[in-house]
Amino acid sequence: MVEKRTPLPVADAVHKVMKHQTSIDTEWIPIEEASERFLAEDIVADHDVPPFNKSPYDGFAIIADNTTNASREHPITLEVIGEIGAGSVFENNVGNGQAVRIMTGAKIPEDCDAVVMLELVQEHTDNGKNFIEIKRPFKQHDNISFQGEDTEKGTSLVSKGTYIHPGVTALLATFGYAQVPVAKKPVVGVIATGSELLDIKEPLQPGKIRNSNAYMILAQVQKAGGEAKYFGTLSDDFDTCLQAVKDALSEVDILLTTGGVSVGDYDYIPAILKNLKADVLFNKVAMRPGSVTTVASLEDQMIYGLSGNPSACYVGFELFVRPIIQNALHSSTPHLRKSKARLGVDFPKPNPFMRFVRAKLVDEGGSAAVFPAGLDKSGSVTSLSDANALIVLPGGTRGYQQDMIVDVLLLNEGEGSEWPWENIVPYYK
Amino acid sequence: MVEKRTPLPVADAVHKVMKHQTSIDTEWIPIEEASERFLAEDIVADHDVPPFNKSPYDGFAIIADNTTNASREHPITLEVIGEIGAGSVFENNVGNGQAVRIMTGAKIPEDCDAVVMLELVQEHTDNGKNFIEIKRPFKQHDNISFQGEDTEKGTSLVSKGTYIHPGVTALLATFGYAQVPVAKKPVVGVIATGSELLDIKEPLQPGKIRNSNAYMILAQVQKAGGEAKYFGTLSDDFDTCLQAVKDALSEVDILLTTGGVSVGDYDYIPAILKNLKADVLFNKVAMRPGSVTTVASLEDQMIYGLSGNPSACYVGFELFVRPIIQNALHSSTPHLRKSKARLGVDFPKPNPFMRFVRAKLVDEGGSAAVFPAGLDKSGSVTSLSDANALIVLPGGTRGYQQDMIVDVLLLNEGEGSEWPWENIVPYYK
Repeated sequence: MVEKRTPLPVADAVHKVMKHQTSIDTEWIPIEEASERFLAEDIVADHDVPPFNKSPYDGFAIIADNTTNASREHPITLEVIGEIGAGSVFENNVGNGQAVRIMTGAKIPEDCDAVVMLELVQEHTDNGKNFIEIKRPFKQHDNISFQGEDTEKGTSLVSKGTYIHPGVTALLATFGYAQVPVAKKPVVGVIATGSELLDIKEPLQPGKIRNSNAYMILAQVQKAGGEAKYFGTLSDDFDTCLQAVKDALSEVDILLTTGGVSVGDYDYIPAILKNLKADVLFNKVAMRPGSVTTVASLEDQMIYGLSGNPSACYVGFELFVRPIIQNALHSSTPHLRKSKARLGVDFPKPNPFMRFVRAKLVDEGGSAAVFPAGLDKSGSVTSLSDANALIVLPGGTRGYQQDMIVDVLLLNEGEGSEWPWENIVPYYK
Repeated sequence: MVEKRTPLPVADAVHKVMKHQTSIDTEWIPIEEASERFLAEDIVADHDVPPFNKSPYDGFAIIADNTTNASREHPITLEVIGEIGAGSVFENNVGNGQAVRIMTGAKIPEDCDAVVMLELVQEHTDNGKNFIEIKRPFKQHDNISFQGEDTEKGTSLVSKGTYIHPGVTALLATFGYAQVPVAKKPVVGVIATGSELLDIKEPLQPGKIRNSNAYMILAQVQKAGGEAKYFGTLSDDFDTCLQAVKDALSEVDILLTTGGVSVGDYDYIPAILKNLKADVLFNKVAMRPGSVTTVASLEDQMIYGLSGNPSACYVGFELFVRPIIQNALHSSTPHLRKSKARLGVDFPKPNPFMRFVRAKLVDEGGSAAVFPAGLDKSGSVTSLSDANALIVLPGGTRGYQQDMIVDVLLLNEGEGSEWPWENIVPYYK
């Protein structure tokens, strides 16, 4: 008999999921391997940057007062009493009438207070001594990078949960993080169900299709920051399925299944959840595609029943799994990034439920337009390869017109949104 | 003595670099490892998707004509003569007055031409036979996913050079690519020069700084799609440097050095390039930061002398190295993505050269605003950790005002630009 399920609004469903936190440990890994991971601790400057007053140019460290009367007609002459390579320190005194040759990045001698660039002086040698001529006055502090001007000791640099891109890596290296504290990747298991599924290596057979969802989700898990673990395809035998789910649960933080969540005779996921005494958060969401998405918790583990349809499976993952993975990584913006865009064409399809349309977002010179990508059917796999966004159309009986401003969720952005589920209302500009 | 160098406009410099192609082989790797790689071949559909007419719902396959007179008051009754699980095929004939139970994704029997959803029928059993009642008429082709409606055999699906995101992975799995042809990652070596550099593990010492550039560039190489190989920090000894560069060149496709490209007494890169008889494409670019960026070619290898200043080094990489790596990966959009944004504050600093300002791009609901990130000095390392864009300000003697629309290069976007170096002119909207 057909089970009646009450569809939950999308925002409520996400909210229910987000209440469950997967707690994850910190691990220290070499900086060379830390790219694309998430910081597990705040990083605070333990020294000034620059750590000393330094020269931003190749040139000569001088005492500015000595140049007050310098002009093209009456250049002043200073004796060069030494040289400072980057990385070395000039220990002697520098007096009036003297200068020191200094390399980019080297520490300014104590007695000096300005730097003259190499190009601006005339050098000459006299009696075995080196001299420079300067043709204009310099002010105190000219051409000096001051200790701490970039960053003062104690400054909070980047916070826990920050995604490590190359600019963050530079900062970590500057502050000596040869080993970097990052959030361990949550282990996310994937099981595909359905006797219609051929292994990716098998030739096509009548009535059967290749298992594309599992590989797609494995890629989604990696992209969201998780460690993906594939447990293969299950047959339609209930006991085998149940045991496989139990085995998988012993190895993962989060378990994803695809297929078997509808109300068909071979849709075992609901029965498996019941058998495990899992707490089903919801088994129907007021959305298209993916309305049959089921989420359950079992102590501190999460079990997802994603749809067997590729696009429904894809959307279910991005809405309900991605933020849980990102939360475990301490991200403060765990959801897909929400933005707005001009709807490039009419979208006449009426729909009682909130609809997520796979779409191509196009940059029109600083503002965005969005176009549905390919066939908008939940079974479509080709439209996913073109899509870089989901158009979010709230439930209602009417369609939407070209040039309305609609909400979009961006699929390929590293940076996410805090909570995108407010004020989703298309409008004319 | 100071060598005179003629600064080359940025677009010309990029153009010169792009003439040199690094040729890269194809390798076949398991689909599970192909995420974030680039396809080395066009992918063409070798079968229809779906490969047969299938049911998008759980329900009953019927002959539509049988339901012409069905109504709430006068439901019609069909005998259920069998069942088709997903993945199996119904071999028997279906005649008038008959129906077949069908699961989501299963193949429609030859004789049937519509599907009735499970929820819409009333089931009953009579004398050991199963029947359904249908209360409204269905049309031919109702609720059928037709063979090839998603993709027809022979359709070009994704082209060589496509970045493999989860949607592309789904497509590859659908078409049986257990092994995926991807471009081999070009091997990019990194050498840091400068005796002021401390290893990342060493405690600070007077006059010295930690080597942050090398780790930053290693991360940039990975992000751009290359395989990064670190050759360590060199001292200021010329012969040691030369030998290290020669050794590194025997192991890489592209070699990056950081530091040592200015006109200081310890800046050996120009002399090394001369010694190697490398063809110097340019050694000065009309830009800030990074004007000393040097690029040379040596047969089919590229050698880069990037600045020792963190931000100058960063910008030099993104402008001149990233597109060469992406080209080797067959990307059709190898450059940083160009977009436009509203300048959020005045930028009064005048500049004779084109300026790249590290900046934070903020989404203001479908249109973008951009704000300089931190201190705009080429030595600044902290501003890089906040930045997600570079503001591009063309050379000129005046500054730029708030609310002008300026060009920006996006740092964290997977998708790039074809050729961003046209029409860079700020304007008021």
